[in-house]
Amino acid sequence: MSAQTVTPAELSDDEVAGIHAYWRAANYLSVGQIYLLDNPLLREPLAPEHVKPRLLGHWGTTPGLNLVYAHLNRVIRDRDANVIFITGPGHGGPGLVANAYLEGTYSEVYTGIEEDADGMRKLFRQFSFPGGIPSHVAAQTPGSIHEGGELGYALVHAHGAAFDNPDLVVACVIGDGEAETGPLAASWHSNKFLNPVSDGAVLPVLHLNGYKIANPTVLSRIPAGELEALLRGYGYRPITVAGDDPADVHQQLAAALDNAFDDIGAIQRDARSGGKTERPVWPMVVLRTPKGWTGPQVVDGKQVEGTWRAHQVPLAETRSNPAHRAQLQEWLRSYEPEELFDDAGRLRAELRALAPHGDRRMSANPHANGGQLLHDLDLPDFRDYAVEVPRPATTTHEATRILGTFLRDVIARNRDRFRLMGPDETASNRLDAVYESTGKVWLSETMPDDDHLSPTGRVMEVLSEHLCQGWLEGYLLTGRHGLFNCYEAFVHIVDSMLNQHAKWLATSRELPWRQPIASLNYLLSSHVWRQDHNGASHQDPGFIDLVANKRAEITRVYLPPDGNTLLSVADHCLRSRDYINVIVAGKQPELAYLDMDSAIAHCTRGLGIWDWASTATGEPDVVLACAGDIPTLETLAAADILRRELPDLAVRVVNVVDLMRLQPDSEHPHGLPDKEFDALFTSDKPVIFAYHGYPWLIHRLTYRRSNHPHLHVRGFKERGTTTTPFDMVMLNDLDRFHLVMDVIDRVDRLGARAAMLRQRMADARLAAQRYTREHGEDDPQIAGWTWKSSERNERSE
Amino acid sequence: MSAQTVTPAELSDDEVAGIHAYWRAANYLSVGQIYLLDNPLLREPLAPEHVKPRLLGHWGTTPGLNLVYAHLNRVIRDRDANVIFITGPGHGGPGLVANAYLEGTYSEVYTGIEEDADGMRKLFRQFSFPGGIPSHVAAQTPGSIHEGGELGYALVHAHGAAFDNPDLVVACVIGDGEAETGPLAASWHSNKFLNPVSDGAVLPVLHLNGYKIANPTVLSRIPAGELEALLRGYGYRPITVAGDDPADVHQQLAAALDNAFDDIGAIQRDARSGGKTERPVWPMVVLRTPKGWTGPQVVDGKQVEGTWRAHQVPLAETRSNPAHRAQLQEWLRSYEPEELFDDAGRLRAELRALAPHGDRRMSANPHANGGQLLHDLDLPDFRDYAVEVPRPATTTHEATRILGTFLRDVIARNRDRFRLMGPDETASNRLDAVYESTGKVWLSETMPDDDHLSPTGRVMEVLSEHLCQGWLEGYLLTGRHGLFNCYEAFVHIVDSMLNQHAKWLATSRELPWRQPIASLNYLLSSHVWRQDHNGASHQDPGFIDLVANKRAEITRVYLPPDGNTLLSVADHCLRSRDYINVIVAGKQPELAYLDMDSAIAHCTRGLGIWDWASTATGEPDVVLACAGDIPTLETLAAADILRRELPDLAVRVVNVVDLMRLQPDSEHPHGLPDKEFDALFTSDKPVIFAYHGYPWLIHRLTYRRSNHPHLHVRGFKERGTTTTPFDMVMLNDLDRFHLVMDVIDRVDRLGARAAMLRQRMADARLAAQRYTREHGEDDPQIAGWTWKSSERNERSE
Repeated sequence: MSAQTVTPAELSDDEVAGIHAYWRAANYLSVGQIYLLDNPLLREPLAPEHVKPRLLGHWGTTPGLNLVYAHLNRVIRDRDANVIFITGPGHGGPGLVANAYLEGTYSEVYTGIEEDADGMRKLFRQFSFPGGIPSHVAAQTPGSIHEGGELGYALVHAHGAAFDNPDLVVACVIGDGEAETGPLAASWHSNKFLNPVSDGAVLPVLHLNGYKIANPTVLSRIPAGELEALLRGYGYRPITVAGDDPADVHQQLAAALDNAFDDIGAIQRDARSGGKTERPVWPMVVLRTPKGWTGPQVVDGKQVEGTWRAHQVPLAETRSNPAHRAQLQEWLRSYEPEELFDDAGRLRAELRALAPHGDRRMSANPHANGGQLLHDLDLPDFRDYAVEVPRPATTTHEATRILGTFLRDVIARNRDRFRLMGPDETASNRLDAVYESTGKVWLSETMPDDDHLSPTGRVMEVLSEHLCQGWLEGYLLTGRHGLFNCYEAFVHIVDSMLNQHAKWLATSRELPWRQPIASLNYLLSSHVWRQDHNGASHQDPGFIDLVANKRAEITRVYLPPDGNTLLSVADHCLRSRDYINVIVAGKQPELAYLDMDSAIAHCTRGLGIWDWASTATGEPDVVLACAGDIPTLETLAAADILRRELPDLAVRVVNVVDLMRLQPDSEHPHGLPDKEFDALFTSDKPVIFAYHGYPWLIHRLTYRRSNHPHLHVRGFKERGTTTTPFDMVMLNDLDRFHLVMDVIDRVDRLGARAAMLRQRMADARLAAQRYTREHGEDDPQIAGWTWKSSERNERSE
Repeated sequence: MSAQTVTPAELSDDEVAGIHAYWRAANYLSVGQIYLLDNPLLREPLAPEHVKPRLLGHWGTTPGLNLVYAHLNRVIRDRDANVIFITGPGHGGPGLVANAYLEGTYSEVYTGIEEDADGMRKLFRQFSFPGGIPSHVAAQTPGSIHEGGELGYALVHAHGAAFDNPDLVVACVIGDGEAETGPLAASWHSNKFLNPVSDGAVLPVLHLNGYKIANPTVLSRIPAGELEALLRGYGYRPITVAGDDPADVHQQLAAALDNAFDDIGAIQRDARSGGKTERPVWPMVVLRTPKGWTGPQVVDGKQVEGTWRAHQVPLAETRSNPAHRAQLQEWLRSYEPEELFDDAGRLRAELRALAPHGDRRMSANPHANGGQLLHDLDLPDFRDYAVEVPRPATTTHEATRILGTFLRDVIARNRDRFRLMGPDETASNRLDAVYESTGKVWLSETMPDDDHLSPTGRVMEVLSEHLCQGWLEGYLLTGRHGLFNCYEAFVHIVDSMLNQHAKWLATSRELPWRQPIASLNYLLSSHVWRQDHNGASHQDPGFIDLVANKRAEITRVYLPPDGNTLLSVADHCLRSRDYINVIVAGKQPELAYLDMDSAIAHCTRGLGIWDWASTATGEPDVVLACAGDIPTLETLAAADILRRELPDLAVRVVNVVDLMRLQPDSEHPHGLPDKEFDALFTSDKPVIFAYHGYPWLIHRLTYRRSNHPHLHVRGFKERGTTTTPFDMVMLNDLDRFHLVMDVIDRVDRLGARAAMLRQRMADARLAAQRYTREHGEDDPQIAGWTWKSSERNERSE
């Protein structure tokens, strides 16, 4: 248990009065946002037209947020502390907007919302109003890096923000509703990955107001001893603040925060002076105050304050029901606005003085607008990591292993700003060259056979995709860089987090004051076609489909077919801003197709004809298109069969790296103009498209293309188990033999030789299946296929 | 803390020897599965050809699973206990297969795998082998309801299995890797929802073998005091078993299990005799044994047993490297197979006697093949809950509120077999009529203002979609029924769980011995078009897209446009088996379109022409298609404008309830034959399709249809915020005015009147936007639109 070093002084009556007034001001502005269209300072009696016709917002959590905020302001001023505020209960949006307004930040960022009565009127009106701002804490809220609409990610975001920010304290309010979610429950253990020397601190404030929408919360109703044990079990020292008398709670909370900040300071001094990186027991606050505190006690005969009924809008009929309206007026008046705001409607100077100044304001802290602090990565030249490719498709390598050497040096050059996340899969995904320059973060006990554990590691491994994603989001949003490497199937675990981050990016791009941040980069390896050993549960390529539904301006999907193209794509993604980049790449030994110059040219175009694999010189009879490493392999093997067996057939091979090129340019910034699309895929010839994922996505991307009726897609159709790699492609009709059959079925007038070839292909499939079932591995002739000649087929010479 | 009532007797030496031999047999069979093609009983020296060429499987977790299994067998026999086994570390597949084989179940289910030397050879060969069985515990494994490939759901599945099964004990092994996941971390609190009177018990066994793939685990490296506090904080009484000397661990584990089962019995007797439903402190076991215990100590000079290196296949080169092969032989011989199996290769009778018999075998327990125990729901006649619809589109109701009355009575009639899950949203989704017949499960403290909490409630609310989904999966897989109601956007939180359940269903349908189970039913309400108050974070209709990628034979998606159609669809889904049914329905007041007879006819067809809204009698000039309640509203309002303003235009309105009808019948069992599709949508007329979700899905479902080139889809294109309902549809060009503009843009030769109408529509959009921005609510004329006449337009009479 960490030492408690300082007994905090009690607040003076004046200090309590000041904080209380500041809290009242924030509460007043919060209620005003929820309810008022006009008459912001209540200088006339509240009339129906002063009240919004639709009341949208959440009161219940807001006074607690405002309370913590006001008290943190004191701590920041007293200590010149560098603090950002993460609002787990993000539906308490009015509270955070109110505080940003009280601090002056709001008017700086949104110049139309001035610090006067008219500005206040506009502030109120815009909230949850068409053309205005959302009801939740969102990208629009100054000082926020966290939406809090979909609950569960507050504490993991807080840790992401704290990594490599040794001077930062991330105050993180966790609602007791949110605390029931899985991601939040796992996030408590983030403290096992927080280095007291080189990282900042996270101060969790578990706010037990007792209720969700319609139910009590689990943590508010377990015995106090169990809660204490739970939090100590998570590795925290809980400091409890509880009550419903403001004066008492102010004293308790001030003492608790002083205690916590003293302890954080002591822990950090201790660790930093002695280089003591073992995990300390960090302090945290448990705050038990009533839901909807200071709001209406009883409405229509039912208790509201302190119950679930305070969750949203306690008084629902303030426009039509005079009693409700009178109660609203009484509620607003209870904050005594005339004492808080001057004649102009501006926060009184003595209250304004209670807020921190400049960048120390939590609403203006640059860490919460991470792009302001973003430094480019110092990237080595990715060309230096290229593999030699003397001739296409003749030598093998492991693509991710090559990438690992590049990432090793990215890490070495950017130790303060780059992290690699992975759910215990970084070595499995064959990126283990990174361990030549760094270790895996680990602050707990170590044992002799542990592998590359280090308190300062740049790799973060934990068996939770939620934590990997959330840490990285927090890290990116505060102006740093990273890459999340993950088994392809299990990245679906964070589908909903991706959704929320995509929404955040789409919104923040439209806000001029939000600076661009580094892209969220995924490397999906151990993909569907090479999880033959783990079986069906590990086979799912659908994350791309999810990403493709997001806004086109922020999503990019890359399927580099080999190591050099992977290097080129990865370099591009690490330089990009405000995107979600998904890279799918194999980890198993596979053929190299392009030397580095060709790879760069190919990735720059995003797709292109591979002349060396094509027999067509002019207009082809058929196009074999492919996207993804395994589809590319099978397509080339099919092209090889065709050039030998049907030498008169003009085959064009097109490889696609940048999937969004398939869309029209009207739909996606990377989209190919129709003319260029037709130049590659023809406007009327059969296209056999071998795709990495679910085949329908290719149709969805290309349905507007003139040649779409002749597009035939093979991909994963949810057939899989533990078997061999080639059996996997056969189960899904993506194998070379089937692709040849598809060509024969779709090209007219091929004649008897083709018909015989078709039968031989069907026989070859059966023989391949027999071989695997007999030997338990693939026929070496199939597995060892290479492109036998670098020469073009005679026909095309 | 619950009383510990019995001090268990020590095992005799004979008992220890017996359990140890049984464990050795299971370990032997596990290693054999991973490595051997032939020579199963090692009756000749191990030769290269006896060993599999590809070694696929996981040894590390397996001996721990086998140990727990062997000890549970003793407990089951001693007490005639009714126990199923949930394997969190599901990659320990060989262990569970081995135990099912030792119990005889495997040979009963798979008659080709006999209990003799040749059967053993086949058992070994088929494992992780093409045409054989997967490497993980899966649907193919007798006794399992849990795949364990994607980690995190063991404990939540265990609780789902225990609900309403008062005599069942669900033993649940949780790996310390899995314990790092969010869903597992949240699952510990499932005990707050387990009723000791009417539910069974869950016995968690936290297996700390210390390592994941490449890393130590968090829970194995926190101080013992923290772990103890954590588990007590979760509400458990941990009983620790630790060691690496088998004889000692056997005694410890036997005592721990006796202690736990005694305690469970005492808790249940106490609760059931006294009707004491307050939450007890349940026992659990913490088991610390080496990873890969009894396997190779050192391989190639590196420590393997007890480290992360034991995770997968400790000896990797047993075919090519004689030293590895010799070590494998020594390892296998260390189990002394000749003492375990008789001359025929059958488990010796005295060991066989250590397993339970018949249905008490965990591999044969009918709860783990839930379809065997499934009873149909006793369903009231859904027609009795119909709303009157005197004329289409003139009266309003809340669809989910109507469904709530039906569900109320479903619950009342099926108190032993139906549960309604929801993440604190059942009332918010307006299903609160259910509280007339039941409450929400709650075993913790209650307060006066709590709402409908009850220890025996049939509704389960917790702020974790993971728990809702996992509990329901466990409940269904053990032969019961249920419905998960969820905000549409946040159901993405369980995307990956849906994936895994879909895989399970697809596999189990192909296994004749697995009986069909009740479908997994989703009601998605609070959907994208009516989350205008919560804003962008709550707006995402993409779950349908995820589901549409799963196997066609198990997925069904319904978009009932009103209350009566919702009733008809819900009744259908509750009767179905082995499907995943997704129902999307609104909760806000909305127009009723169909009386009950029409609703049944419409839902039976799945889609159809709404004559009353169409002006075309024969071939139309344009088809207005719609799917989803809000798109249907906007389509009808557009049709209303068109019949007034362009009375000569022959408009056909087609509504789609069953989305999969849009696919060809070759792709989905519900798919419409092309001829019928063309009869509805024409083969060449423009179709303006207003769809609930992302528009691309409609293209993906219909791209093979002849009229696809003329299909124009409006839907959600990721534009949203906190605003009004009509502004939401306008932001996405799905509003009635835009639909009219789309018609005018796509129907040829409409003339000047249409051009003027187009301009008026554009003006109407601007006016509507202005209105909302001025008033903060929608123009009542727009919001209050109804179909003014039940008569057809004159032209069509």
